[in-house]
Amino acid sequence: SVNPDLASERQTASFSVEKLTALLDGGTEQTRIRRAVVEAIESDPVFSRENQYFQTQNERYEAAVRKAVHLQKKMHEMGWTENGPEYKYIYRALSGDVAFLLHRVFMRSISVLGSDKQVAKWIPLATQHKLIGSYAQTELGHGTYLQGLETTAVFDTATQEFILNTPKISAMKWWPGDMGRSATHTVVFAQLYIHGKCYGIHPFIVQIRSLQDHSLCPGITAGDIGPKMNFEHIDNGYLLLKNVRIPRENMLSKFCEVRPDGTYVRQGSQKINYFTMTTVRISLISDEVLTPLMKACAIAIRYSVVRRQSKLKPGEQEAKILDYQTQQEKLLPQLAAAYAFHFINDYLQELFNRGYREIQRKNFDMLPELHALSSGFKAVITQHCTAGVEICLRACGGHGYSLLSGLPSLYTKILASCIYEGENTILLLQTARFLIKCFMAASAGQPVPPSVTYLAAVKHGKCPAKNKLDFLNPDIYTEAYQHVAVRLTSNTAAKLQDLIQSGVKKHDAWNQCTVQLVQAAKAHCHYIAVKNFAETVEKLETKAGIQKIMKHLCDLFALHGIFSNTGAFLHDGYTSAAQMDMATASYLDLLAVIRKDAVPLVDAFDFTDKSLNSALGSYDGQVYQRLYEWAQKSPTNQMSPAYERYLKPLLHNTLSKL
Amino acid sequence: SVNPDLASERQTASFSVEKLTALLDGGTEQTRIRRAVVEAIESDPVFSRENQYFQTQNERYEAAVRKAVHLQKKMHEMGWTENGPEYKYIYRALSGDVAFLLHRVFMRSISVLGSDKQVAKWIPLATQHKLIGSYAQTELGHGTYLQGLETTAVFDTATQEFILNTPKISAMKWWPGDMGRSATHTVVFAQLYIHGKCYGIHPFIVQIRSLQDHSLCPGITAGDIGPKMNFEHIDNGYLLLKNVRIPRENMLSKFCEVRPDGTYVRQGSQKINYFTMTTVRISLISDEVLTPLMKACAIAIRYSVVRRQSKLKPGEQEAKILDYQTQQEKLLPQLAAAYAFHFINDYLQELFNRGYREIQRKNFDMLPELHALSSGFKAVITQHCTAGVEICLRACGGHGYSLLSGLPSLYTKILASCIYEGENTILLLQTARFLIKCFMAASAGQPVPPSVTYLAAVKHGKCPAKNKLDFLNPDIYTEAYQHVAVRLTSNTAAKLQDLIQSGVKKHDAWNQCTVQLVQAAKAHCHYIAVKNFAETVEKLETKAGIQKIMKHLCDLFALHGIFSNTGAFLHDGYTSAAQMDMATASYLDLLAVIRKDAVPLVDAFDFTDKSLNSALGSYDGQVYQRLYEWAQKSPTNQMSPAYERYLKPLLHNTLSKL
Repeated sequence: SVNPDLASERQTASFSVEKLTALLDGGTEQTRIRRAVVEAIESDPVFSRENQYFQTQNERYEAAVRKAVHLQKKMHEMGWTENGPEYKYIYRALSGDVAFLLHRVFMRSISVLGSDKQVAKWIPLATQHKLIGSYAQTELGHGTYLQGLETTAVFDTATQEFILNTPKISAMKWWPGDMGRSATHTVVFAQLYIHGKCYGIHPFIVQIRSLQDHSLCPGITAGDIGPKMNFEHIDNGYLLLKNVRIPRENMLSKFCEVRPDGTYVRQGSQKINYFTMTTVRISLISDEVLTPLMKACAIAIRYSVVRRQSKLKPGEQEAKILDYQTQQEKLLPQLAAAYAFHFINDYLQELFNRGYREIQRKNFDMLPELHALSSGFKAVITQHCTAGVEICLRACGGHGYSLLSGLPSLYTKILASCIYEGENTILLLQTARFLIKCFMAASAGQPVPPSVTYLAAVKHGKCPAKNKLDFLNPDIYTEAYQHVAVRLTSNTAAKLQDLIQSGVKKHDAWNQCTVQLVQAAKAHCHYIAVKNFAETVEKLETKAGIQKIMKHLCDLFALHGIFSNTGAFLHDGYTSAAQMDMATASYLDLLAVIRKDAVPLVDAFDFTDKSLNSALGSYDGQVYQRLYEWAQKSPTNQMSPAYERYLKPLLHNTLSKL
Repeated sequence: SVNPDLASERQTASFSVEKLTALLDGGTEQTRIRRAVVEAIESDPVFSRENQYFQTQNERYEAAVRKAVHLQKKMHEMGWTENGPEYKYIYRALSGDVAFLLHRVFMRSISVLGSDKQVAKWIPLATQHKLIGSYAQTELGHGTYLQGLETTAVFDTATQEFILNTPKISAMKWWPGDMGRSATHTVVFAQLYIHGKCYGIHPFIVQIRSLQDHSLCPGITAGDIGPKMNFEHIDNGYLLLKNVRIPRENMLSKFCEVRPDGTYVRQGSQKINYFTMTTVRISLISDEVLTPLMKACAIAIRYSVVRRQSKLKPGEQEAKILDYQTQQEKLLPQLAAAYAFHFINDYLQELFNRGYREIQRKNFDMLPELHALSSGFKAVITQHCTAGVEICLRACGGHGYSLLSGLPSLYTKILASCIYEGENTILLLQTARFLIKCFMAASAGQPVPPSVTYLAAVKHGKCPAKNKLDFLNPDIYTEAYQHVAVRLTSNTAAKLQDLIQSGVKKHDAWNQCTVQLVQAAKAHCHYIAVKNFAETVEKLETKAGIQKIMKHLCDLFALHGIFSNTGAFLHDGYTSAAQMDMATASYLDLLAVIRKDAVPLVDAFDFTDKSLNSALGSYDGQVYQRLYEWAQKSPTNQMSPAYERYLKPLLHNTLSKL
């Protein structure tokens, strides 16, 4: 039975939830396939996450390995293949709670970086799981700056082997997933030396554990790096190499080869490889970043119509907390952001598919733009969504703090996305570098990529809004965002030039502008996200109320950004104080409008109770009953030795005899 | 041996670290006492937190009980008493990792709410640990709004007992610390009923577990609420009461009494009691909020001078990450905030001591102001410091995400402070209510409390700054903060009045202004914090470089607030765009200045390695060595059954036989 406070929220939906779900999935057929996968996974007890919040790191690891092995069987049984339409829904249905994710990265790196011969040898072994692969790039002392890696691979002409070493502790491989306990092989990135000369970073296939008994191979020291904020199910590992010898054939040699005599040969273009790196950043957005935010919104919003607290009107029943403006202002902008980023993700996917086709035709023109967009949006979306999940958690008060709410795990997991696959600040500075370059080019009348042509059109106009309703006009707010992005880019470019002209060295000048460069990069991405949302809404079918509610969310996303960054819009007088008050009024009005559809809007995400795994967020809203039932199962409700050992002697005053 | 990259940072300190430590402690004698307590606690292996990051919730609980019991002995052994000068340092030295904290709250509530007779009976029992107390206020469905509590206590004239019940699941007590597994007694807050009439919430002493064998008493269902984001060492519990009978004498009756015939008598003034509630919010700031931020700063800043990443200048060694402007802009404002809030904490403590003296003289005039300040600052400081710890965590990249860095635990613990002892948004709205009231009074020419007299002086001037150096003048920025606080309060008061005059009901109008009321409350506290920091700096001795570096931090705190909220200062033209650019320039310049003293500034917090418990933050900066050593001890480096069960069959292709 559904909690009546939740049920009543669904009776007044202004749109068809089922149609919105189909829109999010990309069509009703996709919805059908996704649901079939979810059903198959969730009905299988091996994949259960029921006791997850009670398990130790060791238990989580064991369960993840069990699931990964079972998944092989399941896929065979269901007829799912890596190229089938179901594949992309499997990981999501498992909520990522499965081992051997790096095995796929191991395979991909061989496919991309290996010679045909290497691919022919290793890929079948990996596919049949005759080995378990990992990917050892990051070191204790080295992350995003790859050139700084210190592991060495010295070519020995006499034996035709590479000798791998960890010359000092900061060179130890650290973090690689699946490497701490599971992997038998890994791709090690190391500085290649031939005849004493360094040729830079190259990838090498190294066996680290015996295929017979899983013992560590000679010269290998490896293990698990211990507890983290999340990813308990993954055995992130360390690896220390001491004179480990591998055959010459184990250097991945699609682009570079070492001949038997030690001659170093570079071949082919690596550009497609750089492109692969940028697509990874885009590919993680959906499952690793958007899904957690959507789940957090579903949990927090459902809870906020079930939880009643204090009185809004004297003499009445306690109010649903979602009826408070402050609670709406916490949660509804996160909901709007989830939709905004869903649509920008579609846009980026399309752009990258197009880029891929061009690159296959040997046209690399789009690469700089794609790199800038993937870097910037990876940073902006992960940052925004991480903050959003945290807001959802806090908005649930004490119960949000309980692991049983599901929110802490969502938060601690999404937080990692700000760090992995490129640290966000560094990524934003790469976007900024592209912006400055394009701004200079555009100012000089040179052509620039499509996403930045707007930089050429520096207008010194004013925002034309005359009343608060004007701020519900996408042209008005999109233009305002554009103006801010241009201003921040052009001002920082000017500061940079001034510094250099005043004699500051180029790299120092750059460093002195980085705080503002980061702001410019964020503004650029924010502008594109708003513009894309507005354009998407325009193209939606007007039926079933979908377009109308999406328009509201688009307005909210845009106005929330203005409300949260008023200074950026006020700075040069583009927006006046009076206009800012209008925008604020429209923003606050919108909260009350969208609040009415809040529950249907999260229902449209179509999460099952099992996938939310939350005592607060279930579809039926039976929050208190579920918290109580779950808590009773906690291992902390087993007998503790603390009573006999410490409490009893204390209470019985036999403490001195202890 | 100290890492040379860290050692070099200490050679150029512009001030005496030891003198700054003494200033923070409140004198050299206090420093001596604190260090003696820390030394005594840390040299005792029972109090070790060495394996904390590897322990399960059950193990943490057991260790916390063990420590609590051992602490009794230790105090006796060391001659420490609850009234002695050492007492306040004990909890800090234990990093709060100890059980029975609610036992103290149990005792305090009896002292404050109990009659003399009750105090005489229960306090000795509690002091001698013949019972273990807890405090059962919060319910599954009820938190900050106490009047909403649903537990009932019905007076039975026939037996002279109260009959306590949990009428429905949302009325179950939920969260009380020490109650899940340890407590034998608790103070239950329940709606008092006499002859069918409800008299509101009252406190009752209820025994929940046998003093003989610790089994649950008749009618009691109790247990642990399970895993949380932190506080694994605390057995937060649930409690369900079914016709639990307690004698009439167990209602705490200093202020209200039920006579044998059922007559309800109210006596004395509860005002001192309300005062107690507000002081709790202030008392938690130091240990629960400031210490974690200071620790996070110490860890992140030391790590940032040891970690090298990428090149700042071509051809040079990789740069210390603290040399990047973006890293400085993340960490140094947190450091400045830690100092700012340390000084505002001193200010609040003094104010509350004065308030206490007044109240003892039956002068309750200060109560509304103290309530507003304690609510506002509890919210602002917890929010600011929580965000600060998160920034420190993220600023350490991947290693910040490892539990071994210490940062995840600091974050997950400080996060709770935003929720407990009054949810922050609700608290800020209480401050706002006070502000609006005082603003109206001041506008009508009536007298208002000292902290808000500035509201009367609405000036419509402009910021007089003429160049960037003017923004290092405390008068300039303090005035700007004041202007913003007045504007936000007066604008919101005007909006509120407009709405009411246009026919909106009072409570609806209030709700429609709450987002802006929260802004006003924050601006008020921010202004007072800046003003207090500036005034504190002025009074410092100019010797030993202390005043100079504190002035820098004060400037940074103020300018960071302006830089992060430019819209608030630009809005009505008080600050022009050109002035904002000056303020920004001064702000960015300051980062480079303070960066030079960053390590000495965190050294002054005087944390021992054991108290930081961080592989990244130790005094010697041997980060990588320590991460490696600690990781090897992780239980995840023990043999896992996963190999024999799943990995071996997979690798040996015997999977089908499973």
